[in-house]
Amino acid sequence: MCEANVFIKDKEAKEYELLLEAVDKVIPGDDEIILESIFGERKIVKAKIKEMMLLDHKINLERI
Amino acid sequence: MCEANVFIKDKEAKEYELLLEAVDKVIPGDDEIILESIFGERKIVKAKIKEMMLLDHKINLERI
Repeated sequence: MCEANVFIKDKEAKEYELLLEAVDKVIPGDDEIILESIFGERKIVKAKIKEMMLLDHKINLERI
Repeated sequence: MCEANVFIKDKEAKEYELLLEAVDKVIPGDDEIILESIFGERKIVKAKIKEMMLLDHKINLERI
């Protein structure tokens, strides 16, 4: 399946940490992002998308 | 493989149209988005991400 793992970091941080696994839906708002996993888990974070690497199943966010 | 097809529409438009197939990397900037396909094709568009549905291999953008 083609879900992705979502990682997040503070602006100053160097390393990303796992925020939510197996994410299907990503819906960005003005200053927050809604994430929904294939298990129905939902998280809303104040962040912006830094990069998405779909073949690696990886989405990197940065907190704002 | 887990690439996605990227669709785009104007803000007033109802229907999305295909912008780029088989996208691996998505890198949002301040008011533009860089897309890279698995075939090495690269597009830069002035747009924002409306929603991503990874299991459906679909990313919807809106022009800004």
